[in-house]
Amino acid sequence: MTDKKLKKTLKIGKAAARLFNKNGFLETTMDHIASAARISKGGMYHYFSSKDEILHFILSNYMDLILGGLEEELDRLKDDSSKIEFIISRHIVLYTENLDEAKTLLHEAHCLPEKYYKTIAEKERKYYRIVANVIEKSLGGRTRMDEGHITALTFLLFGMCNWIYSWYDPKGSVSPEALSDMIRTVFLKGVDEFKP
Amino acid sequence: MTDKKLKKTLKIGKAAARLFNKNGFLETTMDHIASAARISKGGMYHYFSSKDEILHFILSNYMDLILGGLEEELDRLKDDSSKIEFIISRHIVLYTENLDEAKTLLHEAHCLPEKYYKTIAEKERKYYRIVANVIEKSLGGRTRMDEGHITALTFLLFGMCNWIYSWYDPKGSVSPEALSDMIRTVFLKGVDEFKP
Repeated sequence: MTDKKLKKTLKIGKAAARLFNKNGFLETTMDHIASAARISKGGMYHYFSSKDEILHFILSNYMDLILGGLEEELDRLKDDSSKIEFIISRHIVLYTENLDEAKTLLHEAHCLPEKYYKTIAEKERKYYRIVANVIEKSLGGRTRMDEGHITALTFLLFGMCNWIYSWYDPKGSVSPEALSDMIRTVFLKGVDEFKP
Repeated sequence: MTDKKLKKTLKIGKAAARLFNKNGFLETTMDHIASAARISKGGMYHYFSSKDEILHFILSNYMDLILGGLEEELDRLKDDSSKIEFIISRHIVLYTENLDEAKTLLHEAHCLPEKYYKTIAEKERKYYRIVANVIEKSLGGRTRMDEGHITALTFLLFGMCNWIYSWYDPKGSVSPEALSDMIRTVFLKGVDEFKP
């Protein structure tokens, strides 16, 4: 893809994510997206052949952003608490910097046709596995927790991080750094309790 | 309302919640609901004049279940930790016992017309205020946390409790009691860290 084409593709994705988040995927048309991205409807089809394809592009890109270099960064950190801390602040930063994409992932992914949905779900599973592994290791290996309970602990963390879509305003009195800090404090102290 | 009418109304609500949760509110018709509730379409209109009215009935009932007697029960408990513990296990029990209604609240409330939505949002705010007050008191009153941070802490708890819709199977290896216990442990230990 040429630089110019990539730039245009990203611009369409950005405009579409804003509309999907504001009005919902089902309620948004290709015309709306074309108009928001300031491109002719005919021009649009040069980049995307359908609304499904645009939604898939947005979500796939967002998950790539979340996964990109994550394992390498985690390998570089020494202790497990720092790894969890890193995961949390990275999650919150990516969320607040890509609000439309993140909210579209949480609300509209189910609108994707099966073949597209599968690739997003696979990336989500990969993210889940990376985080669950870090949490399991942080428990000291000799933990009495079975897989079900480690899954639960991992999703309690995702719950705190993802539920922010329903209440959090990055421009309000709690900065993204302060929010990450609170989640880190609550979660790490909690995990301590499950150590052997 | 007579007992017979109330029973029928609840039956329609139950059937509709199942369909809303399974197929989405927009995709469900009055015909689908009538057929699932084993009632004639004409008969349905004797109980509800529209799908909006049914959705409102379901969500309003569920919020009443959450709020009903909550403040009285909390007043009866002595220490703040027990109050938080009680809120968590009650939240999880009501969720697991009313999965369709709870998930419909999380996913479809935005489909309600303004006048209906306002009454549900008011009940949600009331619940939020009750929980936030307990959390604030548990911090010891002399906390340095401002309102924004107490709001954040409250929604971290709601995040852990509500995000379970995306992963939790009450019939899996983690029982609702064990789940409540994990959330309680993580949250109470975390809150301790914010005490003066």
